[in-house]
Amino acid sequence: MSLRPATSAPPAVGVDVGGTRVKAGLVEATGEVVARVHRLTPGRTVAAAEVEELIAEVVLDLLGQVAVAERGAIPVGVGAAGFVDAAQGRVVFAPHLSWRDEPLRENLARRLGRPVLVDNDAHAAAWAEHRYGAGVGESHLVMLTLGTGIGGAILTEGRLQRGRHGLAGEFGHQQLVPDGLRCECGNRGCWEQYASGRAIARLAREVVAAGGDHASALVRTLDGGEPGALTGEHVTRAAREGDRASREILAEVGRHLGVGLAGVAASLDPGTVVIGGGVSLAGDLLLDPARETLARTLVGRGHRPVPPVRAAQLGEVAGMVGAADLARHAAAGPSA
Amino acid sequence: MSLRPATSAPPAVGVDVGGTRVKAGLVEATGEVVARVHRLTPGRTVAAAEVEELIAEVVLDLLGQVAVAERGAIPVGVGAAGFVDAAQGRVVFAPHLSWRDEPLRENLARRLGRPVLVDNDAHAAAWAEHRYGAGVGESHLVMLTLGTGIGGAILTEGRLQRGRHGLAGEFGHQQLVPDGLRCECGNRGCWEQYASGRAIARLAREVVAAGGDHASALVRTLDGGEPGALTGEHVTRAAREGDRASREILAEVGRHLGVGLAGVAASLDPGTVVIGGGVSLAGDLLLDPARETLARTLVGRGHRPVPPVRAAQLGEVAGMVGAADLARHAAAGPSA
Repeated sequence: MSLRPATSAPPAVGVDVGGTRVKAGLVEATGEVVARVHRLTPGRTVAAAEVEELIAEVVLDLLGQVAVAERGAIPVGVGAAGFVDAAQGRVVFAPHLSWRDEPLRENLARRLGRPVLVDNDAHAAAWAEHRYGAGVGESHLVMLTLGTGIGGAILTEGRLQRGRHGLAGEFGHQQLVPDGLRCECGNRGCWEQYASGRAIARLAREVVAAGGDHASALVRTLDGGEPGALTGEHVTRAAREGDRASREILAEVGRHLGVGLAGVAASLDPGTVVIGGGVSLAGDLLLDPARETLARTLVGRGHRPVPPVRAAQLGEVAGMVGAADLARHAAAGPSA
Repeated sequence: MSLRPATSAPPAVGVDVGGTRVKAGLVEATGEVVARVHRLTPGRTVAAAEVEELIAEVVLDLLGQVAVAERGAIPVGVGAAGFVDAAQGRVVFAPHLSWRDEPLRENLARRLGRPVLVDNDAHAAAWAEHRYGAGVGESHLVMLTLGTGIGGAILTEGRLQRGRHGLAGEFGHQQLVPDGLRCECGNRGCWEQYASGRAIARLAREVVAAGGDHASALVRTLDGGEPGALTGEHVTRAAREGDRASREILAEVGRHLGVGLAGVAASLDPGTVVIGGGVSLAGDLLLDPARETLARTLVGRGHRPVPPVRAAQLGEVAGMVGAADLARHAAAGPSA
């Protein structure tokens, strides 16, 4: 497909509908975010129409910052946390929202009076990393977004692979441990129970509950709060400050990440793996153990290249940047 | 790509280089195998050149059965058990052969005086099922070949997905059980240790070792032989004759198959899963428990379609038929 040069390509609006926040940005064709707004994501009990109203609001807010003459040409893309049938623009199921087989594209297009692209948030983030970040130049990319759970996306020959119904990339629900930890998907032992923000928080609570010197830095981090309040961010901060227990937690989660990555790499043979999402801020404290486990367990090791595991580069704007760019591409012609 | 009508398309030679046998056939564009030859696969200690000599022999044997005027136009395709870089036509690593980074395409082309296509055997079998068998009309197909281990292939939008280095589809080495059974890949707990011919044979040996009435049908099947001689075929035969222990073994392996399939389906969202290889001859005794487990554990169940799990239709000629057809396509223009 041909892209207009960055200087003449219009900006696009990208919206990232996550479990916690709706984040939106006006994104230039260079990937630069020139304006941002965000709102708290309404809970599961709020009607689908109200969430759509809120999305329309943030989009109109951003469109209002563009010169009237340009406004009509600005594409809108939405990346949503959930099962999204991108071809139909429908959200099949969103665990954090009341959307159930919701025709989001149609509803937003009506509200906004312009075409809207709807895709999965992890797909949008992977596309952003491929276009502007850690995946530039990689034709065969797997991206995992590590947040509360594990999101994922597959790019082959530079194109997003969405699967038969648009639901591909849900790597987090492969069984890693039979009869293991209960997952909110209803199964036990899913990978995301062992290699996500939730896993880090659980291990941190266990360290605090065990007490002793080993727990002291994490207890200090809590500053009198309940262990239930511990998050991946607390652990990453303590680990960066040298806390041994916190480093061990990140290493344990990193090893579980590596075990699952070995399965993903055996199945898909990616050229590069990119790890994004909030948990990836732990950086090499998490990724080095993952790389080591991947290299040690990938089938055929010694006879094949082991894909590099890179930290994502775009941080929390990846979703909006990717959604905006996918919308820009869709508006320009054949989809990515 | 445009296919010449079957009436005018030339036949092609397809060769399936497995761990036990080298099977080759002259295959019409309709998928019909009109001539076949086979040889035992030389062991790991035999030099690469000798294996290539043997492959060239069976190909020349088949070419000799074609009218001289037609002979020059007949494409040759080889599907080999191992890691194959299809783009380069190199066998990176073949566990059952002495091939290590072997330029098979180049060597065979020199011996045969014509272009040769080389691909992985499971990829070739999947292509055959897509063209002529259980995967006709399915744009997003995952095929598993259950033999001693698990081979696999991914088709999206009707094209084989080979990954960055041509090594995609090695589903069998995803960890299913931490610290589980030892795998010949060097790891523990790989899926193929629990859902393959090897798994069936192991469970059958356990039943025989435990003795009692439950074991009696399998002991009879052995006909005085050692329990070590039990294979998936024995178990399937006994199960078909109604032996309860054998049916339980197939059901247990089927459930393990289903657990792994749930992970594959979550990751790739295939429209159809096809199960081939010798073990698939167990049919619904194996596949029904797999289907049930898949439906019960696939993430998002209730909000998404569960892919049908179909038995392969082409049987043991799938590899040669697929290799022949891939070669025919390559000769005709852009590759599949």
